Amino acid sequence: MSDAKLKIVVWNEAVHEARNEPATIGEMYPEGIHGAIAAGLRGFYPDSEITTATLADPEHGLSEEVLEQTDVLLWWGHIAHGEVADEVVERVQRHVLGGMGLVVLHSGHFAKIFTRLLGTTCSLKWRNEGERELVWTVKPSHPIAAGIESPIVIPKQEMYGELFDIPEPDDLIFISSFEGGEVFRSGVTFSRGKGRIFYFSPGDQEYPVYHQPQIQKVIANGVGWVAQPGVFREAPEVSNPARGWFEEA
Amino acid sequence: MSDAKLKIVVWNEAVHEARNEPATIGEMYPEGIHGAIAAGLRGFYPDSEITTATLADPEHGLSEEVLEQTDVLLWWGHIAHGEVADEVVERVQRHVLGGMGLVVLHSGHFAKIFTRLLGTTCSLKWRNEGERELVWTVKPSHPIAAGIESPIVIPKQEMYGELFDIPEPDDLIFISSFEGGEVFRSGVTFSRGKGRIFYFSPGDQEYPVYHQPQIQKVIANGVGWVAQPGVFREAPEVSNPARGWFEEA
Amino acid sequence: MSDAKLKIVVWNEAVHEARNEPATIGEMYPEGIHGAIAAGLRGFYPDSEITTATLADPEHGLSEEVLEQTDVLLWWGHIAHGEVADEVVERVQRHVLGGMGLVVLHSGHFAKIFTRLLGTTCSLKWRNEGERELVWTVKPSHPIAAGIESPIVIPKQEMYGELFDIPEPDDLIFISSFEGGEVFRSGVTFSRGKGRIFYFSPGDQEYPVYHQPQIQKVIANGVGWVAQPGVFREAPEVSNPARGWFEEA
Amino acid sequence: MSDAKLKIVVWNEAVHEARNEPATIGEMYPEGIHGAIAAGLRGFYPDSEITTATLADPEHGLSEEVLEQTDVLLWWGHIAHGEVADEVVERVQRHVLGGMGLVVLHSGHFAKIFTRLLGTTCSLKWRNEGERELVWTVKPSHPIAAGIESPIVIPKQEMYGELFDIPEPDDLIFISSFEGGEVFRSGVTFSRGKGRIFYFSPGDQEYPVYHQPQIQKVIANGVGWVAQPGVFREAPEVSNPARGWFEEA
Repeated sequence: MSDAKLKIVVWNEAVHEARNEPATIGEMYPEGIHGAIAAGLRGFYPDSEITTATLADPEHGLSEEVLEQTDVLLWWGHIAHGEVADEVVERVQRHVLGGMGLVVLHSGHFAKIFTRLLGTTCSLKWRNEGERELVWTVKPSHPIAAGIESPIVIPKQEMYGELFDIPEPDDLIFISSFEGGEVFRSGVTFSRGKGRIFYFSPGDQEYPVYHQPQIQKVIANGVGWVAQPGVFREAPEVSNPARGWFEEA
Repeated sequence: MSDAKLKIVVWNEAVHEARNEPATIGEMYPEGIHGAIAAGLRGFYPDSEITTATLADPEHGLSEEVLEQTDVLLWWGHIAHGEVADEVVERVQRHVLGGMGLVVLHSGHFAKIFTRLLGTTCSLKWRNEGERELVWTVKPSHPIAAGIESPIVIPKQEMYGELFDIPEPDDLIFISSFEGGEVFRSGVTFSRGKGRIFYFSPGDQEYPVYHQPQIQKVIANGVGWVAQPGVFREAPEVSNPARGWFEEA
Repeated sequence: MSDAKLKIVVWNEAVHEARNEPATIGEMYPEGIHGAIAAGLRGFYPDSEITTATLADPEHGLSEEVLEQTDVLLWWGHIAHGEVADEVVERVQRHVLGGMGLVVLHSGHFAKIFTRLLGTTCSLKWRNEGERELVWTVKPSHPIAAGIESPIVIPKQEMYGELFDIPEPDDLIFISSFEGGEVFRSGVTFSRGKGRIFYFSPGDQEYPVYHQPQIQKVIANGVGWVAQPGVFREAPEVSNPARGWFEEA
Repeated sequence: MSDAKLKIVVWNEAVHEARNEPATIGEMYPEGIHGAIAAGLRGFYPDSEITTATLADPEHGLSEEVLEQTDVLLWWGHIAHGEVADEVVERVQRHVLGGMGLVVLHSGHFAKIFTRLLGTTCSLKWRNEGERELVWTVKPSHPIAAGIESPIVIPKQEMYGELFDIPEPDDLIFISSFEGGEVFRSGVTFSRGKGRIFYFSPGDQEYPVYHQPQIQKVIANGVGWVAQPGVFREAPEVSNPARGWFEEA
């Protein structure tokens, strides 16, 4: 448990939940994937303000006012990446570069905000046959690995495999293997501008992964690491650099 | 001299030259900045095909056909970044991710292709008072540093200083200092997808930097390092990932 | 100020002080360089136990019992590196690999413990003419840079210049320039085993650098970052690996 | 095939061969493990001089004269690490720091030269039950991955698993998985001084791994990458730095 007072927003497209696809999702995540993630975080950050936002909210729940006060944004998306407004993506990017922490989960690897911050396709290999995933720690001195057993055993999971087309991460903390023999860099960090990013691949709409205590702990550790409440926050402009720069700089 | 047979394209917005700003540019670079850079490369790659392309060319001279056959693209831009068509930027990005080498020079730090591949603002501090720049080698085992004296002395240069808002580079090869005391990570590499990127800051429209033999050698080394003629080239799609991925993957 | 309760040991060979070389050292650092560093830390860690140890102490003040309870060890040495017992160096190495934090200062770049942990010569270029040093932040998202102005101005300092023969650091946080135009990677981190290492070059026996508030703050930030009080500590064996491994593993 | 003219030395302790342990080693590697590795390299470097050296040779076959002319040294050892003379280890270290390439194979992770250059224990988890190993490429833009299929399938192998206690590598090129579910960073690079190091874990005295064409190709690629025949070679002193530095620098 941490006595940090953070402002945390858990974002989920929440389209699987709305469509009830898969049919088990309502039983597995009665308050949505975002609800389950937020509930897990509340156990670690009892003094923090933890809210959720979804695609259907006005401005996807990510207005300038909300982001200005957010220390950490978590992102879950899968089948509606294309429906996220570019204007909101740019806004989130500005705030990450200005110091807001970002935790991207599972199929969020294809979220516009992730590919935009990383510059690569972020593609990977996948197969959904409910295989066992083992999550091994390879950087035990990193705060995100603190208190995490190695390996974490996830009984059934979608397989994510290499080649994961990302830039070389700043920290490689976890590597997963799957029953089929594939491997995946499942826990990686990046710094962009003043902001920190943590990507963690376990978690899916078909499996109750976000109820596992060790998975919740990794996510909580990730939130703690990307949060930089003391950092001076000033979200920079990133679009049309030539115009602004030439006249004003 | 290398007997590599590469296809090299030197791209320049060529707007300073067209406007004759500064007035000395015609005398300093009678064939344009791109012409000077290409001439320097020809001394190192006599068997390679070295061409130039500019903003004013159809498709900026960077059609799909041209890029498919290009091993290395060099990029010089300054006051017309905003006029480069987004479609061309996406095309170049796809080819870099697919394995084409990219060398970005000086004020190209604000080129759309650079900020898009890196995900940050790529802003920096600058002051143009014709100060002496010293370029120090800090990674002598890197091929780009081979045969380079440390420091390279540039008698008059625009100052570029930290904070340079880039992701952590894969390799930090050169650090510059300026008369005013500023420092700058002036030679850095990145890998994105299958492609390699080298950024090198010396060079400006006001100073004859691209005529200095050691600067030419660094650029030639950079071309040699980002070139991967043996790599299987397949430019991936990067836009609208959700659509393509969900239905087809 | 931090309410962390750490056990911090500031180690100094304390030979300059004993010999009164330079003659000004007694006036500048009446309680020794270690005393000044410890005093600076007390302002930031009022609830921590901060002690000092020197070469002349039995076992250099670094017995197994002391190290077992130490969260962070700071190291200052210069003219007596060769007199540090190899047995103590191995002991410190084991504890760093087991999770103890290490902050190495200035001429400690040639300390046996530093070259042993890094594997390189750790040589550098130097010139002592009391030049101005500017310490620029290049990774503002790192906790060690929190609250640090860029640049820190050190009016008079010994010049340390590249090439600094170290492995590629995990984080490059500060780059310095000097009046003569040299540059130096003056603030870098490494992880070795479960331990974290921070090297910071400012500071010398001839200049009152350790009295500057911003330098004290960098060192305090470094202590906070290398400290990992929650990490399970188990110092591994590192010598004669073949014997232990073959029979026991 | 490369027309590089390199001087390559394959070093093997050659103790398993001398003891005929395991009993199959003579049949599997009739010219020793070193002989098999050298034979594999000859196919790729027909114009290079490829020799072997073993523990039993005078100075282990690694005299100053030999090392001065060596571009790349490959290292295989297992049960006799402790018998390698410290004097020879220091000599090899000096030459690596001076620019000689080093390829360390399999159980060489515990070789004195490897732990000395890296500064960590280099310990790992292992189990020898003849499991299938899959070697996945995670950095396809690296020359060592050129032409390598992903995964390489090794039918029977000793398991090496994380945590592999090494510093963060410069490049992570291959990650392996094993039938038991373990993962391992099986192909990594480091730069130390002017020298380059490549560690590759496949290969054992009990399995005919070094006869697999793709394994031979990875090793050949590794030799090509660590070789820097054009680098100015000057092996620095690394022991007793204080003495030499204080008086002479």
